[in-house]
Amino acid sequence: MSFQESLKCKTEAINQLIEQYLPNIDGRQALIMESMDYAMKGGGKRVRPMLMWETYRLFGGTSDVIKPFLVAIEMIHTYSLVHDDLPAMDNDDYRRGRKTTHITYGEDMGILTGDALLTYAFELVTHLFDTHTEQVHTIGKALSVLASKAGIYGMIGGQVVDVKLAGHAMDEDTLQFIYQLKTSALLESSMMIGAILAGAKESDVKVMEQVASNVGLAFQIQDDILDVSSTTEQLGKPVHSDEKNQKITYVGLYSIEEASAMVEERSKEAIHLLYSLSNVDDSYDGFLTDMIQHMIHRTK
Amino acid sequence: MSFQESLKCKTEAINQLIEQYLPNIDGRQALIMESMDYAMKGGGKRVRPMLMWETYRLFGGTSDVIKPFLVAIEMIHTYSLVHDDLPAMDNDDYRRGRKTTHITYGEDMGILTGDALLTYAFELVTHLFDTHTEQVHTIGKALSVLASKAGIYGMIGGQVVDVKLAGHAMDEDTLQFIYQLKTSALLESSMMIGAILAGAKESDVKVMEQVASNVGLAFQIQDDILDVSSTTEQLGKPVHSDEKNQKITYVGLYSIEEASAMVEERSKEAIHLLYSLSNVDDSYDGFLTDMIQHMIHRTK
Repeated sequence: MSFQESLKCKTEAINQLIEQYLPNIDGRQALIMESMDYAMKGGGKRVRPMLMWETYRLFGGTSDVIKPFLVAIEMIHTYSLVHDDLPAMDNDDYRRGRKTTHITYGEDMGILTGDALLTYAFELVTHLFDTHTEQVHTIGKALSVLASKAGIYGMIGGQVVDVKLAGHAMDEDTLQFIYQLKTSALLESSMMIGAILAGAKESDVKVMEQVASNVGLAFQIQDDILDVSSTTEQLGKPVHSDEKNQKITYVGLYSIEEASAMVEERSKEAIHLLYSLSNVDDSYDGFLTDMIQHMIHRTK
Repeated sequence: MSFQESLKCKTEAINQLIEQYLPNIDGRQALIMESMDYAMKGGGKRVRPMLMWETYRLFGGTSDVIKPFLVAIEMIHTYSLVHDDLPAMDNDDYRRGRKTTHITYGEDMGILTGDALLTYAFELVTHLFDTHTEQVHTIGKALSVLASKAGIYGMIGGQVVDVKLAGHAMDEDTLQFIYQLKTSALLESSMMIGAILAGAKESDVKVMEQVASNVGLAFQIQDDILDVSSTTEQLGKPVHSDEKNQKITYVGLYSIEEASAMVEERSKEAIHLLYSLSNVDDSYDGFLTDMIQHMIHRTK
């Protein structure tokens, strides 16, 4: 099977899991289940669950303990998009060609849908304490990473700085801080949780955190590059949006060539770190490396 | 010490814990720590942590494992108020005589502060998996209750029905559903977690859920009564607000006398259930019963 075919199969498998773990649309409060469903089925590349699942496999994980975590990380990512799109935040009416959740269900439901997805992510995972009693220690550790990387020292911390500094001058340190927290934190969470649940050593969990940190930064810089160098047709979304929104980016701070060199450097570091791991499953097929290359060197 | 003096001491102890567990206002994202701090220090009776702590003591709990949970339940309650006050929800500029979080920090920060408090509640509690490894099973169980009672089958479920049916005709069943989820769910969570962490039997945890359910309903009906029978001076907040907001309440569906009889009935049932417990700590001083009576029969 080609990489593209594998990618398609794996995306489909994650979509099926999401379908399976979404709450039934039922009861007096059915509207919230419906809006959660709407938000979660807006497409998307399912990058975070895929990185988590592949890392889990890389370290030889085979149990179904990973499944609620795969859905939970995507729910947390989705809640952040739903709240980000609200009028008081980015005020976006469309995402991936479809009306955003608050446009479809109203602003009050937009707020509540985000809250519901975030809470349900934790709810899903805590069911494992009943069903997988022999793994409570690793589940607890993974849950701890899930919460902290999504919080004020992770994703939310990045959002706050991003929101508050929008339109202001910014140095590379600050920009890197925002990318690291806003984007890398959930990728780090994904790969760390995959490793933890597969029983990886603590030092290997730390290596995976570093891998994800590099991948996240490379991914974001590539995003900045595509915004200036691509066309709307190629990208499938409006280009030059950063300039229009007066957003500071790596391409604003450096030339395209310099920014491209940074993507290359981060991507090499990520792959190098992956190859430095010694306790991985020998039979693992290497999809993770291909996927990282694909994410970073994408043209759309 | 009189009941009022004990109440004051216990409230103070909870306020100190909150102070201790709030994140340091520090780093590039310091603004979010500041707004969390602001939201959490808006006063309030700290009913939920107090019910949790007293239930924990009732079942003989003595460890500090309860502490992050006490703060977490108050953070979840507070996040729900911060989001409730937003313009797209109840649009309140003041709460307890002080500007609401989004008025002080802006609407974007209002959304993010709620998200941050909810996430930090889970983050705080998950640290226990590192520090209290011998209690992971009960911590996991308590965490599961924390998440589910705050979610779509608990508090958020109640909010959705409340928001969507505002101004519409409603029967008692629906009203009770809203009160049960919007108010009782977090009280149930508080008392169940207190019992679970103290090592109570599963049947006793269920009894505490019933106690809290009755307390929550009685508390809300009393709220409806005070809104029509009290004065603004007595209550410390505007009276007749339900009528102004065209809110259906128990006093709209029944007479004040009938509603008062329901408060009495629910309160008796709660106390009756408490007395039916057989595995409680003999040395417990009975503060919980007094507190419930006090909450339900308040005049403001």
